[in-house]
Amino acid sequence: MREIGIGIIGGGYMGKAHAVAMSAVGAVFDTPLRPRLEMVAASSPESAERYRAAYGFARATDDWRALVEDPRVEAVVIAAPQETHREIAEAAFARGKPVMCEKPLGASVEDARAMVAAAEASGTANMVAFNYIRTPASQFARQLIAEGAIGEVTWFRGEHTEDFLADPETPFTWRCAGEANGTLGDLAPHMVNAALALLGPIASLSATMETVHTERPGGRVDNDDQAQLMCRFARGTMGQMHFSRIATGRKMGYAYEITGTKGAIRFDQEDQNAIHLYRAEGPEATRGFTRILTGPAHPDYLPFCQGPGHGTGYQDQIIIEARDFLRAIETGETVWPSFRDGLEVARVIETARASARDGRWRDVEKH
Amino acid sequence: MREIGIGIIGGGYMGKAHAVAMSAVGAVFDTPLRPRLEMVAASSPESAERYRAAYGFARATDDWRALVEDPRVEAVVIAAPQETHREIAEAAFARGKPVMCEKPLGASVEDARAMVAAAEASGTANMVAFNYIRTPASQFARQLIAEGAIGEVTWFRGEHTEDFLADPETPFTWRCAGEANGTLGDLAPHMVNAALALLGPIASLSATMETVHTERPGGRVDNDDQAQLMCRFARGTMGQMHFSRIATGRKMGYAYEITGTKGAIRFDQEDQNAIHLYRAEGPEATRGFTRILTGPAHPDYLPFCQGPGHGTGYQDQIIIEARDFLRAIETGETVWPSFRDGLEVARVIETARASARDGRWRDVEKH
Amino acid sequence: MREIGIGIIGGGYMGKAHAVAMSAVGAVFDTPLRPRLEMVAASSPESAERYRAAYGFARATDDWRALVEDPRVEAVVIAAPQETHREIAEAAFARGKPVMCEKPLGASVEDARAMVAAAEASGTANMVAFNYIRTPASQFARQLIAEGAIGEVTWFRGEHTEDFLADPETPFTWRCAGEANGTLGDLAPHMVNAALALLGPIASLSATMETVHTERPGGRVDNDDQAQLMCRFARGTMGQMHFSRIATGRKMGYAYEITGTKGAIRFDQEDQNAIHLYRAEGPEATRGFTRILTGPAHPDYLPFCQGPGHGTGYQDQIIIEARDFLRAIETGETVWPSFRDGLEVARVIETARASARDGRWRDVEKH
Amino acid sequence: MREIGIGIIGGGYMGKAHAVAMSAVGAVFDTPLRPRLEMVAASSPESAERYRAAYGFARATDDWRALVEDPRVEAVVIAAPQETHREIAEAAFARGKPVMCEKPLGASVEDARAMVAAAEASGTANMVAFNYIRTPASQFARQLIAEGAIGEVTWFRGEHTEDFLADPETPFTWRCAGEANGTLGDLAPHMVNAALALLGPIASLSATMETVHTERPGGRVDNDDQAQLMCRFARGTMGQMHFSRIATGRKMGYAYEITGTKGAIRFDQEDQNAIHLYRAEGPEATRGFTRILTGPAHPDYLPFCQGPGHGTGYQDQIIIEARDFLRAIETGETVWPSFRDGLEVARVIETARASARDGRWRDVEKH
Repeated sequence: MREIGIGIIGGGYMGKAHAVAMSAVGAVFDTPLRPRLEMVAASSPESAERYRAAYGFARATDDWRALVEDPRVEAVVIAAPQETHREIAEAAFARGKPVMCEKPLGASVEDARAMVAAAEASGTANMVAFNYIRTPASQFARQLIAEGAIGEVTWFRGEHTEDFLADPETPFTWRCAGEANGTLGDLAPHMVNAALALLGPIASLSATMETVHTERPGGRVDNDDQAQLMCRFARGTMGQMHFSRIATGRKMGYAYEITGTKGAIRFDQEDQNAIHLYRAEGPEATRGFTRILTGPAHPDYLPFCQGPGHGTGYQDQIIIEARDFLRAIETGETVWPSFRDGLEVARVIETARASARDGRWRDVEKH
Repeated sequence: MREIGIGIIGGGYMGKAHAVAMSAVGAVFDTPLRPRLEMVAASSPESAERYRAAYGFARATDDWRALVEDPRVEAVVIAAPQETHREIAEAAFARGKPVMCEKPLGASVEDARAMVAAAEASGTANMVAFNYIRTPASQFARQLIAEGAIGEVTWFRGEHTEDFLADPETPFTWRCAGEANGTLGDLAPHMVNAALALLGPIASLSATMETVHTERPGGRVDNDDQAQLMCRFARGTMGQMHFSRIATGRKMGYAYEITGTKGAIRFDQEDQNAIHLYRAEGPEATRGFTRILTGPAHPDYLPFCQGPGHGTGYQDQIIIEARDFLRAIETGETVWPSFRDGLEVARVIETARASARDGRWRDVEKH
Repeated sequence: MREIGIGIIGGGYMGKAHAVAMSAVGAVFDTPLRPRLEMVAASSPESAERYRAAYGFARATDDWRALVEDPRVEAVVIAAPQETHREIAEAAFARGKPVMCEKPLGASVEDARAMVAAAEASGTANMVAFNYIRTPASQFARQLIAEGAIGEVTWFRGEHTEDFLADPETPFTWRCAGEANGTLGDLAPHMVNAALALLGPIASLSATMETVHTERPGGRVDNDDQAQLMCRFARGTMGQMHFSRIATGRKMGYAYEITGTKGAIRFDQEDQNAIHLYRAEGPEATRGFTRILTGPAHPDYLPFCQGPGHGTGYQDQIIIEARDFLRAIETGETVWPSFRDGLEVARVIETARASARDGRWRDVEKH
Repeated sequence: MREIGIGIIGGGYMGKAHAVAMSAVGAVFDTPLRPRLEMVAASSPESAERYRAAYGFARATDDWRALVEDPRVEAVVIAAPQETHREIAEAAFARGKPVMCEKPLGASVEDARAMVAAAEASGTANMVAFNYIRTPASQFARQLIAEGAIGEVTWFRGEHTEDFLADPETPFTWRCAGEANGTLGDLAPHMVNAALALLGPIASLSATMETVHTERPGGRVDNDDQAQLMCRFARGTMGQMHFSRIATGRKMGYAYEITGTKGAIRFDQEDQNAIHLYRAEGPEATRGFTRILTGPAHPDYLPFCQGPGHGTGYQDQIIIEARDFLRAIETGETVWPSFRDGLEVARVIETARASARDGRWRDVEKH
């Protein structure tokens, strides 16, 4: 058991989630590396100090460079705006410090490419924080597919749908401006990452996107409310995705259906402790989708949850993430999803944007 | 109450369903017109006689022309192969006899156009038998949308997925040959019809299709196992559809999700007596999808089913269809879906085929 | 194929359902005996004539004795009030005519006993019309238990709950008066019959009942709104039941959960085309309740419904019942549930009433 | 913000959960009191030291008295075996230290009474750790009922069912011996507590219990595998409960259904982030059970979970518990469920045991 000093840049929503996770992960997973909340950085001295006190950090700063350079900060978590990801990551890697970066990797494919280069040049641990894929259910889905439990995969349907902007009267916010904050930039990466994690690379796609509500109280919306795509995975599977922030009634519509020649899988984050599995075996009379509650028999189920049915929630996903990041640091092994995996996501998003412009099928490898 | 002589061409699966429906509809709905099972036509005298005896027809014939021309046959139901639809319908309309035709309307858009012309020239009742849309649940969905219960519609997702050919070892059958028998030709029309019925015409689309299992025991498959499309409805709504006969685990995956600015609807034929409705009204704390069991408060619920929860099944859809066909004959009014509505479906299918060839978006009006 | 003249006493809700079923059953199941709607009896000449015309009977009468005695009436269906069941059945059996009687068998245990005696003395077909147990799902549950698919049964929970009197402002009707029309008399027999059909006889029980809303607009309620019981089956299994007509939100809450040492079954009539099966076999990681859609692989699935997912509804249950009654007549074999089975149900109800009076456990064999 | 030294007695499953919760609660809820993990006690020096290191306590001891008496320990959490609860609590209260005690309160009603006396004599914070009732869903159910959202409550059904001993071949463990470790002693308190929390006191009941599998590999079972009861709440509502550790297929079957004159609630811990609400208002056509995902609009939803759908899990329940215990210490107000509430649960259990002996209805107030 050895302590490791953690520095978190950003103390808002995700910064807090990471701070709590770093406090809890040692006890939960009995990790060899034990995080010490060393420093938090925020945009002003006041908010940095507030975060420090609230989350239990030793020190605070309003200068992220000071944090990155501090010798007691041995690993960096980036929970700051997308635009800052690249610069921070490059600085941390330059000092040989491991980095876990909030999704999406960078504000553009160019940024993402530079970040991968920096990470790989440094040879240190790097990871993108796609939390939703960390549920035991989604980890189990990945395992089932890899093991061939549903045979040859013939179809993928995924969606990331929420409704926080469904009402046209919801006022304009920062989310309504800038490509990176639109649905394709902000929500789609979660599900694209899931698709890549579950089925491997996407070869080509045809996409379309739209702004349904162009005017909101307080401003003109310049990014997309929803987008969709048809795609072909490199393994040959055909697929379909939909992303929306105006999907009335959907609160965490991170959902997928995967069909194979011998079975099928369905998952919906709105019922995150269950996964539905169909297997084309045994007598017809007893076939159907089985609702499996995740439990100790599944990957990443929290060790103190002794039985299925105890259940994990959002914060637990972040704790699992922290465990995996610590493991990467400790073992020196790449942990999925690495920055390179995050770049793959960014390229798919970029390809979708290009396709949406002219309505044609595009190859991802050209983007 | 007046009797009407019914002639049914085809005595197999659908012919039987229509015969049972015509026997039952009068008692069930207390219809002013009361069907009399006058004559059944089949491909051989033996099978025609067998159907006659089994279903209770007065007479049998192996010549559909004899049926169409018989003066005691006052209305014709076509439940014969797609290739015969046009010729039969034209003959019946030429004699001024009402026709209910199984889906799809014809084997091609050309056939469908000719059938619409014949129907409209005759001025008599004409109807396409898209049974699934006849559930009280789907009729209620249609009503909700028309009344604006979910506001402006912003998204449509539909699928018609089954798994009867999911196993690559399932032998080659007639379903594996010929464009009309593929997924786009045979399954897609149900869901395309639903989309048109619920949201109105489709303006443009981009589609793709594929044969996943090209070889089966007994023959080489030459039509599509699955297809998908992205579309834009004339009303402006963006949508997505998927059709498959290899969707392992799906038995009657006739399902749709429709999102609007004020609510959302979900339906799945595998739970045909329920519809899920979300409405963005009232306190946040009590919002969610409501599972509504269809009952007497909904359109077309069978009158002898006094309470919600009694439930309707497949045969009941055909009985409702028979009621609507009889009503069209009696009132002289067009009943939905007319042959013209069936032609709209055929054009969308045709457009999808064209788009799948080059991967580009296509306008339906040009097909 | 031979015709059989059917006489139905009662033309209301259930009389109509039986008339439609008798019209359809021959074509649906290709039965050797083919029903001919010979005569309907009702309480006045006018209503009898109305039913005749609406449902397609050859003749009508306002005298049930005339119907029973008519030589062209070869089998009798009793769909008249409970109080008349005994007298009609005795008259029919005295003439050697088969009888299908609506549930419950008689208005009292005494009536039921006399009806069993008459049925067995006549040696002719006799059957009680407990329709809900006729779904393919419930027939499959029965088969699974009999085959030991869930091991030794250790628990049964059943309910029959509806909400037609949930609102205290719903006016007084005939349902609010008389023991036989209360929840225990009118709703409970369905679920008690299910319990007996699935697990065999009940040995002992402790029950309680209550009238929650004693006053309604238009009158004072003198029978029970809800009742419950704990029981021990003769096979040793412990169980629990609840019956209610004030169960707000429940439309057809005919539901049961059966647990065994190797598995478990759940069913709810509000999703009548599915049954949920858990089996304690295979790896822990893939265990869960499987939602099985009923289809051709299950008992009694309608033959024209080729695939699972087509679905059956309320009317189909009555058609299956008609098929079974015809089969009993044809083969001379007892078909379940016979009048003797109906008597068993009546005795359980009677025992529950006795227990509810003093709150003690009672043996069913003493009632 | 002020620190408070926490001592936890017991470092196993529940001790760990409380330790993690105490680490996280300050950051999660921004609590005025900030826990410091001061000391952990276990049965041997080795295990105490192991827990200390793993969970991050400052000190360890194998003597719970040392912990209770230590001046830096300002609040005590009891996560040791039931038999020790009373002695520890009495010692802590004697020193004026607040106590949170794992359920059930004591090993007997006598113990529970003594613990309430000690708690109330000391005037310090006391709380029983019934975690399952802490979900936002169950807290919302409680609020709905209190506000009259479902009208006058007419029915309660609850169950706590799991399947960890469903297989008769599962070997004998400590859970198979001793009244306190049986289903009524160990599982029932959770659901009885829920019933009391939701509907208030139970006036009378009739219960039955049984050991289904009396012999297991390794020993003879002397306590109950399952139990059930019928009850009457003091408010007049009739109810039914079932408790089982042999409920094959149930992983966390902590579930209830509550019916009122104007609505109904359903909850199942196996889908802990949702609650189902029916309200008898608005048009019949849109009524049904609404599946509400818990979110920021509901009580106790974790503040860093910004949207519904993020979801809480088992550990989050313990964090909420920690928050409430800290609040009780800080404000000096009684926090539900207090030791007195825990005693009420124990009395219901005791009454059920007495009733199960002779099968008669019993008044809780006499136990």
